[in-house]
Amino acid sequence: MTVSDLDRLIQLLARLPGLGPRSARRAALKMIQKPETLMLPLAAALEQAAENIRACSTCGNLDTADPCAICRDPARDRTLVCVVEDVGDLWALERSGAFKGLYHVLGGTLSALDGRGPEQLNVAALVERVQAGADAETGAGRPDAAIGAGRPREVILALSATVDGQTTAHYIAERLAGLGVTISRLAHGVPVGGELDYLDDGTLSAALKARRPA
Amino acid sequence: MTVSDLDRLIQLLARLPGLGPRSARRAALKMIQKPETLMLPLAAALEQAAENIRACSTCGNLDTADPCAICRDPARDRTLVCVVEDVGDLWALERSGAFKGLYHVLGGTLSALDGRGPEQLNVAALVERVQAGADAETGAGRPDAAIGAGRPREVILALSATVDGQTTAHYIAERLAGLGVTISRLAHGVPVGGELDYLDDGTLSAALKARRPA
Repeated sequence: MTVSDLDRLIQLLARLPGLGPRSARRAALKMIQKPETLMLPLAAALEQAAENIRACSTCGNLDTADPCAICRDPARDRTLVCVVEDVGDLWALERSGAFKGLYHVLGGTLSALDGRGPEQLNVAALVERVQAGADAETGAGRPDAAIGAGRPREVILALSATVDGQTTAHYIAERLAGLGVTISRLAHGVPVGGELDYLDDGTLSAALKARRPA
Repeated sequence: MTVSDLDRLIQLLARLPGLGPRSARRAALKMIQKPETLMLPLAAALEQAAENIRACSTCGNLDTADPCAICRDPARDRTLVCVVEDVGDLWALERSGAFKGLYHVLGGTLSALDGRGPEQLNVAALVERVQAGADAETGAGRPDAAIGAGRPREVILALSATVDGQTTAHYIAERLAGLGVTISRLAHGVPVGGELDYLDDGTLSAALKARRPA
């Protein structure tokens, strides 16, 4: 077979997370069978997204506008900044509806294995953001910091409970020390709906240590 | 968030087999982070495939040419026609390299539950193909049957070993009876590399019944 168009499509699909070579073939097949309702709309949606969606220069969220909808929303609490690893985590928190502050997307975690240092992450911008808030309060405010108005008073480190995530949290906490913000982390504990029997020892002992009056 | 471009992309991705809403979000995220190397090439590949790839009017295979590369290949054995459910099965047989004849893609199986009857499948064309071969031999050949030259002598029913697949095989065998072709099916048995311990009873008893001298 010399179906190079098809082979190229399958190769590109196989690079998406969650699709291996076999499922990429199945996906390509399904799309070819539905060119009008699936294949061409998807091609158009991809082009449109590539053209319109960009990272917010304030927080790193993805949106068609810069600053993003969250940073522009006047109803959100500007004193809270939640630091997340990537936009997927931001979406997860937004879906939960439990957080009404602003975000800061790092773009990953520090990782000695993968060779990711602080320069590869969006850390300097976070320090600057917190610093600008502090300056604004003491009168040394920068005129272009209007979006940052409403000084951040608490930075919530919502990073993964992995070694890399916790290393990153520790590093950020050190960088922000002395800038006059409270630094907090997500609680460890039993997932809602989780059965104790299936929980790992680390989670169980963390949940036990952080026990609260019933 | 009012990122309708992004939402639309995620919705379309979630319709691909193997991608749920969560993995569609991850895939969209990865693509947005690599617009130049993944997103735009994928959009272009989709458009190109939608434009160029069509079903072969002889066998139903997907290719940029009609008749497809397999039907045109003079090296393939035109006396063998392998009937498969869909193009994915054809690809699987091609990957195995074990078959050098022609194919006929049904486009599914008969299914009482899904309301798929013989009219929804590519069966009439198969009967016509076999019939045309028989006619050609007896001198009643149709001039447009040049591609079919080299009369089919054996039709291999390579259908799934499910109830629907076997019903379809049975139906096709009946339709082809009396047209002077041998009709065969794939052997049941132990998959190569398979451990007996993990095999279901049906496969085991089929493998035992079809045992051969060592």
